[in-house]
Amino acid sequence: MKSHTEYLWFNTEKKLEFINITLELERALAKAQVKEGLALASAMHITAGVYINDAEDGLIADIEEWLERLAPFRADYRHHRTRETHGDAHLKNLLVGHQVLVPVTKGKLDLGPWQQVYYAEFDGARPKRVHQDHRRLGRSLTLFVRLLPRLAPQPVGTGGSPPLPPAADWRPHAIFPGPALSVDGVPAAA
Amino acid sequence: MKSHTEYLWFNTEKKLEFINITLELERALAKAQVKEGLALASAMHITAGVYINDAEDGLIADIEEWLERLAPFRADYRHHRTRETHGDAHLKNLLVGHQVLVPVTKGKLDLGPWQQVYYAEFDGARPKRVHQDHRRLGRSLTLFVRLLPRLAPQPVGTGGSPPLPPAADWRPHAIFPGPALSVDGVPAAA
Amino acid sequence: MKSHTEYLWFNTEKKLEFINITLELERALAKAQVKEGLALASAMHITAGVYINDAEDGLIADIEEWLERLAPFRADYRHHRTRETHGDAHLKNLLVGHQVLVPVTKGKLDLGPWQQVYYAEFDGARPKRVHQDHRRLGRSLTLFVRLLPRLAPQPVGTGGSPPLPPAADWRPHAIFPGPALSVDGVPAAA
Repeated sequence: MKSHTEYLWFNTEKKLEFINITLELERALAKAQVKEGLALASAMHITAGVYINDAEDGLIADIEEWLERLAPFRADYRHHRTRETHGDAHLKNLLVGHQVLVPVTKGKLDLGPWQQVYYAEFDGARPKRVHQDHRRLGRSLTLFVRLLPRLAPQPVGTGGSPPLPPAADWRPHAIFPGPALSVDGVPAAA
Repeated sequence: MKSHTEYLWFNTEKKLEFINITLELERALAKAQVKEGLALASAMHITAGVYINDAEDGLIADIEEWLERLAPFRADYRHHRTRETHGDAHLKNLLVGHQVLVPVTKGKLDLGPWQQVYYAEFDGARPKRVHQDHRRLGRSLTLFVRLLPRLAPQPVGTGGSPPLPPAADWRPHAIFPGPALSVDGVPAAA
Repeated sequence: MKSHTEYLWFNTEKKLEFINITLELERALAKAQVKEGLALASAMHITAGVYINDAEDGLIADIEEWLERLAPFRADYRHHRTRETHGDAHLKNLLVGHQVLVPVTKGKLDLGPWQQVYYAEFDGARPKRVHQDHRRLGRSLTLFVRLLPRLAPQPVGTGGSPPLPPAADWRPHAIFPGPALSVDGVPAAA
């Protein structure tokens, strides 16, 4: 069995920042040379999140606004009696979650066609605490080599469901900075 | 070591739909013939959720209303500039989460007496995009065979805590479509 | 491969209660004698949560108030037609999540300097249902022994990021009941 762990550091310039880390997860996976397993991406901070969603700038702005609405900055959090000012960042962390597991199949991250992995910083760019700007993301890739023949994947529908449409039929997308993702192990057409 | 992966497709008829997938997870587990490990159920869409909660129709309606309150449909999401109309579904996905891990103990899903696994579709039944109605759920069951003798489970309480009440003492339940669940490996009485 | 599972029971005295279980996770890890792997802490109830955040009393009070604002107690949940009164506890569970995975590195929980694992009870102290006060937490520690030499962890930055500051440079903290945590495998100074 193989396991591979990497720690990432990020420099952030704004208080709220969303960083697409899908490509870095793929790089770590390539190093680990694992074919079947799980990749855990987990923030090591309590004022940051890790989530999977779309790489579309409008949506990211919507998410930012939504987080501010549900877990707003306020001066009067009790936590601020410790001289902190980021009570809202802790709540945003709880709302979005701080970790995701990505299945690894045939040596690839087994993501859906629009799934991208994001690191969300909720308390970045603190000029008075320069060192704390360098956020650490614990990306513990615990990846397992298959030792026994794997059972063939079998679709199990709730009725005679047709297969997924080919990738080309999916909606066009305004912004898609990440790498070409594969569907069912077949690389997406360029 | 054994790993087993299945992909599920769902046809949905409504925009919001909640599908109990506990039985299908159990079927996949039976195929995998694994005794100790973890089962990951993870949606491959960014407008769908996977969560664990109660199989009670009133509660599911409460959840639907609550999701609409915290992540409402709105016409003016920035994401809609891409000609999409489901900005709310992305936020509902972030709120509920898109994956759960279920421990596998003695060949059974090790769920609490009321825990059921749900696939929640937040953007279903789109008549103009027929192909996208067929939602794919990546249920990556990465299940591990125990190779060394397992340590006996030992209850560790925060004081001399009494054991769980027998299943019969739990509250009666209006709707419980799922399979009979076991408590601590002992199948629930029929 | 080694796997180790423990079930915990809790007695709670209030409806909402937050219990730091980091030390108990470390005790279980010590019993399992595992060096590299993953620890899953997962609530077996649908009215309880498990999350990772700060061990600071003011923040915990903020979290409690925030949960009540986003998922308030109400008399008129549809779920209450089953004669239950804890519809809000189900929603709080969905909001916070019911499980976390903690990476295990060099035999230690690989948590960030302020990360502590919490069990959050949202429906405790029900005097009419004494038995249900004894909450069970399924802490399935599925921990894997490294069989192949592990690749050395390599920091991968988004630019020449400096390393983390030493633990002593982190902000002072009002309340920190948990055990001394290690950063990168080096135990924190006493």
